[in-house]
Amino acid sequence: MKQSQMLIPTLREAPADAEAVSHKLMLRAGLIRQLASGVYTYLPLGFRVLKKVQEIVREEMDRIGAQELLLPAMQPAELWRESGRYDVYGPELIRLKDRHDREFALGPTHEEVITSLVAGEISSYRQLPVTLYQIQTKYRDERRPRFGLLRGREFLMKDAYSFGRSWDELDVTYRAMYEAYSRIFTRVGLNFRAVQADAGAIGGEGETHEFMALADIGEDTIVVSENGTYAANLEKAETLWEEPAASDAEVPPMNRVHTPNAHTIDQLCAHFGLEASAFMKTLLYLIDGQPAAVVVRGDREANETKVLNALGGEIIELADGAVVERLTGAAVGFAGPAGLSGVKLLVDREVQAMTSGIAGANETDYHTENVKPGRDFEADLVGDFRNAAEGDLSPDGSGPLKFYRGIEVGHVFKLGTKYSEKLGADYLDESGRRQPAIMGCYGIGVSRILSAVVEQHHDANGILWPPEIAPALVHIIPASAKDEAQMKLANDLYRRFADAGIDALLDDRDERAGVKFKDADLLGLPYRIVVGREAAEGRVEFKSRAEADKETVSADEAFDRIKNM
Amino acid sequence: MKQSQMLIPTLREAPADAEAVSHKLMLRAGLIRQLASGVYTYLPLGFRVLKKVQEIVREEMDRIGAQELLLPAMQPAELWRESGRYDVYGPELIRLKDRHDREFALGPTHEEVITSLVAGEISSYRQLPVTLYQIQTKYRDERRPRFGLLRGREFLMKDAYSFGRSWDELDVTYRAMYEAYSRIFTRVGLNFRAVQADAGAIGGEGETHEFMALADIGEDTIVVSENGTYAANLEKAETLWEEPAASDAEVPPMNRVHTPNAHTIDQLCAHFGLEASAFMKTLLYLIDGQPAAVVVRGDREANETKVLNALGGEIIELADGAVVERLTGAAVGFAGPAGLSGVKLLVDREVQAMTSGIAGANETDYHTENVKPGRDFEADLVGDFRNAAEGDLSPDGSGPLKFYRGIEVGHVFKLGTKYSEKLGADYLDESGRRQPAIMGCYGIGVSRILSAVVEQHHDANGILWPPEIAPALVHIIPASAKDEAQMKLANDLYRRFADAGIDALLDDRDERAGVKFKDADLLGLPYRIVVGREAAEGRVEFKSRAEADKETVSADEAFDRIKNM
Repeated sequence: MKQSQMLIPTLREAPADAEAVSHKLMLRAGLIRQLASGVYTYLPLGFRVLKKVQEIVREEMDRIGAQELLLPAMQPAELWRESGRYDVYGPELIRLKDRHDREFALGPTHEEVITSLVAGEISSYRQLPVTLYQIQTKYRDERRPRFGLLRGREFLMKDAYSFGRSWDELDVTYRAMYEAYSRIFTRVGLNFRAVQADAGAIGGEGETHEFMALADIGEDTIVVSENGTYAANLEKAETLWEEPAASDAEVPPMNRVHTPNAHTIDQLCAHFGLEASAFMKTLLYLIDGQPAAVVVRGDREANETKVLNALGGEIIELADGAVVERLTGAAVGFAGPAGLSGVKLLVDREVQAMTSGIAGANETDYHTENVKPGRDFEADLVGDFRNAAEGDLSPDGSGPLKFYRGIEVGHVFKLGTKYSEKLGADYLDESGRRQPAIMGCYGIGVSRILSAVVEQHHDANGILWPPEIAPALVHIIPASAKDEAQMKLANDLYRRFADAGIDALLDDRDERAGVKFKDADLLGLPYRIVVGREAAEGRVEFKSRAEADKETVSADEAFDRIKNM
Repeated sequence: MKQSQMLIPTLREAPADAEAVSHKLMLRAGLIRQLASGVYTYLPLGFRVLKKVQEIVREEMDRIGAQELLLPAMQPAELWRESGRYDVYGPELIRLKDRHDREFALGPTHEEVITSLVAGEISSYRQLPVTLYQIQTKYRDERRPRFGLLRGREFLMKDAYSFGRSWDELDVTYRAMYEAYSRIFTRVGLNFRAVQADAGAIGGEGETHEFMALADIGEDTIVVSENGTYAANLEKAETLWEEPAASDAEVPPMNRVHTPNAHTIDQLCAHFGLEASAFMKTLLYLIDGQPAAVVVRGDREANETKVLNALGGEIIELADGAVVERLTGAAVGFAGPAGLSGVKLLVDREVQAMTSGIAGANETDYHTENVKPGRDFEADLVGDFRNAAEGDLSPDGSGPLKFYRGIEVGHVFKLGTKYSEKLGADYLDESGRRQPAIMGCYGIGVSRILSAVVEQHHDANGILWPPEIAPALVHIIPASAKDEAQMKLANDLYRRFADAGIDALLDDRDERAGVKFKDADLLGLPYRIVVGREAAEGRVEFKSRAEADKETVSADEAFDRIKNM
């Protein structure tokens, strides 16, 4: 590639609305441009990276025997009604009508389409197991598209679906997929963790792991034990739990205390001069429309996923002020478990183990001291309803937990029979009985990988592409386009790389050397060869993007070094 | 690929609604499946062909220096309003609203997006010329999706756009693209013609060629001279014209004749006992809402494109019965040029050259004899308003014209400045003057190529894939999966091909040999190696799909033959 002929519109400054480093750098390096909120064009250099990531994904999918196909983006609404997701999916599902007023959705995912395809084509146990995948454009009308390719409305995904005859067979496929994902994320150069995740609304019964690229801007919190043997999404993360010995201490009767303006735990700590752990925090939710109260210690965060799973619900939302008042008779900030009726009471096991605590009095401006679990309130359900906290002990005994931020780049999921039952993907087993296929689904955010990689691989001057997905491996820069000896040697090298099948970018622009070097740092190709004053002697400057050191070597040696990498 | 593990759902019968041979065969060979009208899934084998076609397109585009990028399918309606196409495009444009009620279109083509991109990124003559392309899913809500991938609503296209500084520069790019297209269609194995086409509504000023795959089900008629030097779409095709010597014969005055029930030229020929060429056929149109009458000889077809171009109009439609009655005072079938007022009168040059003819009398059930051009009516415009006919002489003197049916698989088009002016894609030239970029656009129906190839390459038993795009080059078929010697030799061969980087499909299914052979014919891989009774002696049967002859050769020789192809 000759830079003078390529569309690589680098920018000195990123647009003001780009927040994430990766978003800024990808705009500045001329990799992407926004067309509409969450909708991006991949410019030639960005597309080259995207293509290389796709090739890696394809190689690793093919290696485990997954078969590539291509499903349509336009999906009949009918299919989504059959699976029951047409209404559940909400405004994220982009809907449209064709000229005959028939309803379609633009696929955010393809469980419905693939399951109905397999339902039509597979009928015998002899045709199973089978794993099918595609690399395809997906559509999700995100409420808050952000961070460039990280959360877009039109994006590229690899989605795979496996169909098997037993959970054991699914285990094998799941494990193969898990390992393929690990290879993919390693090859693209990501520092990642596979973490246990919540099966939640998608399917319910199965095991599931998310692959998280570590990055401060990540929207997920992941929880990892010191030696790394335990790793989970915060939604799912558990902690080691030992029931404390019951205390014999006598607890005085409950005592109503006037606490005007103390709505928050911080305000209560100040008011009572106590640690947050002395309080019982009571949160009111609507779960599938039904009210529930969740009580956690004042220093804890309620975990909505755990609450939802405990009740087998689908949608959880914090109750608004009006609902709180109706349920507790008090303004927000004064709810408590004692004397609360008409709601399901979920009490975190830590609260249940407290000798006593201070809780809201269900009366505006009042709290109650000496609230004793079992004496002053009776839980409907006691369990783990809180988020893990840093320093908590790992449930597998591998020590204290640490928190990281992660970008979800992949997800493997044991779906079971949810879709195969609804959409009729069944087969006749060896004894002629009809059985639903046991499914798994496996996604990779292909375009999102670009953002995650740049988030992890950059410095103050630009991107540092990992070699396997770099737009080109080497950047050849003649210091002066007007110097014949320099241009000749640069062109010679360029041709040698081309003949060797190595992607090189030749900066043949008539620009000042300083401009070219700045652009080179920004673009971030792994190796740089500057053809300068010693061109006539066949000597060039060799530098790795990641290192500050430059070396002057012969052009032959520069070529050989890169060729042998 | 091992057939027992692949999803290749072959069918004995095609669904009843599949009309075209290619559609039937692609369904029967398990290459595609319909999800909704005009919306198809590419199954693994079909996807392999699609990928190979894409790779050929990509290679040839890269070879001429075009740069690949990827534009979004979701396009803001705003852009389409700027270009003026949002309303013009009609119901073919799929429209949707996002969660904020903002309007989008799903791109049927990307002139708007690419032009606005270039408008933002290119500002100097030094950045031009540039040619950008993508291979991307397109959406058109066709009124009559048909013939499988031939006319779909979601389909894969390669679209390229060039931006240059002069028409000369555009000529160079256009020629390079034309030649790249010729190489692409040759490599995928198509029998095609590049034909002159009408610039029409897209752009107006420029030259344009369509690449037509010859096939009886083609929706276009193409007109080719005997030696092939002249080739044009029927819309555009011209004929050699020599003005006949004016006749001195006296023409009697017009004579009104009662012609009840003679609405058509056939009926009139019967009624008068004359050839169709004795009549003047008068058709009434609305052109951008304004009435016009077009008069061609009774044995000719009016050419609406030529009429439209002569008037510089955009939309032409045949007037309905009510409008015809209002304009002529008579039922449909009795219009004529003499005495017709209030409409623009376009007279084909052949009619204008007639000494006299029979025309409608503009009175129901009456025609007029002895209608003489110039005496009995005065044309507003005389010109070539008819379709060429088989046997007409080519305008370049290369002899009689023949007609073929063609499938449009590619289109190259000199756009000029239509979009660059509307969307602000201009640059500063060497003297600092602002100039609009001169554009070309170039499309290939990537998915449509599959249908066109199958339409041209099949026999009664199935497909005959051209080697370069075949799902695999060789089909290895052990006659019996239960025979150890056969399976061993078949597997050996399979591994040897894999090691040599040659795609092979091994039919390792436990099926009767007859079933396997039938499927092999249907799938249509170029070469077949049957491992049968002589497996123990290392001998196999070698056959080309295109030829009936089989040969028994050593496995080594079978391998070498394919390797050396």
